[in-house]
Amino acid sequence: MADLDLDEIYRFAIQLGKNAGDMLLSAANARINGTAHAVSTEKESAVDLVTQTDEDVEAFIKQRILSMYPDHKFVGEESYSKGNSKQYLIDHAPTWCVDPLDGTVNYIHLVPFYCVSIGFVVNHEPVIGIVNAPFLHQLFSACKGKGAWLNETQQLPLLRNPIPPLRQEAPKGCVFSCEWGKDRRDARDGNLQRKIESFVNMATELGGRHGKGGMVHGVRSLGSATLDLAYCAMGSFDIWWEGGCWEWDVCAGICLLNEAGGLVTTANPPDDFDTAEIKPANLGGRLYLAIRAAGGSDGETGRQAQERTARAVWRRVRTLDYSRPGV
Amino acid sequence: MADLDLDEIYRFAIQLGKNAGDMLLSAANARINGTAHAVSTEKESAVDLVTQTDEDVEAFIKQRILSMYPDHKFVGEESYSKGNSKQYLIDHAPTWCVDPLDGTVNYIHLVPFYCVSIGFVVNHEPVIGIVNAPFLHQLFSACKGKGAWLNETQQLPLLRNPIPPLRQEAPKGCVFSCEWGKDRRDARDGNLQRKIESFVNMATELGGRHGKGGMVHGVRSLGSATLDLAYCAMGSFDIWWEGGCWEWDVCAGICLLNEAGGLVTTANPPDDFDTAEIKPANLGGRLYLAIRAAGGSDGETGRQAQERTARAVWRRVRTLDYSRPGV
Repeated sequence: MADLDLDEIYRFAIQLGKNAGDMLLSAANARINGTAHAVSTEKESAVDLVTQTDEDVEAFIKQRILSMYPDHKFVGEESYSKGNSKQYLIDHAPTWCVDPLDGTVNYIHLVPFYCVSIGFVVNHEPVIGIVNAPFLHQLFSACKGKGAWLNETQQLPLLRNPIPPLRQEAPKGCVFSCEWGKDRRDARDGNLQRKIESFVNMATELGGRHGKGGMVHGVRSLGSATLDLAYCAMGSFDIWWEGGCWEWDVCAGICLLNEAGGLVTTANPPDDFDTAEIKPANLGGRLYLAIRAAGGSDGETGRQAQERTARAVWRRVRTLDYSRPGV
Repeated sequence: MADLDLDEIYRFAIQLGKNAGDMLLSAANARINGTAHAVSTEKESAVDLVTQTDEDVEAFIKQRILSMYPDHKFVGEESYSKGNSKQYLIDHAPTWCVDPLDGTVNYIHLVPFYCVSIGFVVNHEPVIGIVNAPFLHQLFSACKGKGAWLNETQQLPLLRNPIPPLRQEAPKGCVFSCEWGKDRRDARDGNLQRKIESFVNMATELGGRHGKGGMVHGVRSLGSATLDLAYCAMGSFDIWWEGGCWEWDVCAGICLLNEAGGLVTTANPPDDFDTAEIKPANLGGRLYLAIRAAGGSDGETGRQAQERTARAVWRRVRTLDYSRPGV
């Protein structure tokens, strides 16, 4: 990163996120005013959709980036999806990883939880993350070493004087965020069944589900992986567990969460989940478990509390099958 | 209603909703600034909570109402919950039905989806509804005959030039909103199991689940019945299906949805659900199925499309058991 001016790139990315958010809001308002319509096209299933707005906003972002930083690589959801491969394309080079419109289903229905997600990755590490949800008036930004911020003024997590610990009985008492996703096949022991079994374990009273009941405070589904991560960075969601999304859905959000003191590892429980080393999630691995920042208490550090909580989730969830080439 | 000045009461209620929303935001900001903490007490279960903020905001609202309208009745969540009865207390008299803080779990965790909900009921009909979600900058208001509004300027539903129809294949293509709720008992065929079975039916591909698969566009859970209804009024959520909440959770939201052209009936499928008359939901019945406003198309009126969609939901959901005295 020696020859990269991260400060300058961060300022550029924040402005880009603001401009792209304005485009999303203008397109939504044009529909509200009756001067435009959302025309969507199915991609891989009836719930995997792209609109003209996704494509317009991606073209805008890509053009801005490549004119400012012609040496950087660009991986965007819509241009990627037009290719044939599902290969993971990020390498050591400085790369922008962009979802022009995360929460496309929300956007089509004008559910407020849609956003633009702009990540910048160096050596496989997301070092800048910008998420702008314009209908919610929520702009999230983070840069390595500079913390994570809401609307440029409120440092995250929101509660930081002090940062609350994670209770010993966690996931009891936690807000658990999860998504039903796009794979809706009625396959015996398929991903949908495994997800649901995991959600139900997390929700059921302690002692229930043959000891797997987690009695979380609440189960939340927004329909945007990016906002799920941003809300973990806020400290609002304690736990987010997900399989099936892609690097552009999580790149900016992982940077936000890291800078807010959170932890991101894999969704799939290792064989020895009670003792396994907790490694950072693979950016392109399509499997993510996020835990919010935690304060220390009772002789336990915040990191130890996060790892304890991650293991408590792994104990209650099923392994998901989202493989891809190149990872 | 002859002797009620609804215009004046509506103006009063909007201002009250603004003031109460400011109180919620101030209390949240005091926690963010480290000058206060959320202390919560369990009510009926580990996820049924009340904070000092719920009680302070209810006391404020009640005092304002009873000093302005001493002849009106008042039913608020927190004062009601302190009583022993679960009786439905609303009768023909003009009654304010208030939840000072809907989404208490969200508020405790600073998840943005919390709001104050102020309803005014005459002859069992919610005729004024105010919902203020201050962290989201979303103030919803409605009065019988005057439409439903977002932030006092944007009439609902958002898409109204024209209002989109509900597709023939609905619930396919719909955004489906539902809540996991507070009853987390691991009881065979209990409410939790019945809810989950219903959610899974709605989510699974068409043809799946022995023909019950609904292939909805997305499944959303915000943790606030009030906001679920407000988002149906926006037209963002097509369908909300829920059992277990109370009249103060839905009173203002039902007024919003009615004024936006939506439909609210019971969550529980009648025996003859394909042909049964579709009746308005019982305010205190704890069982709600909401369908957004719909435009007409292909020789079908909007109301016919809503009823078709309600029946398509009933075909896929289980009967829930939330009985109470007095209803």
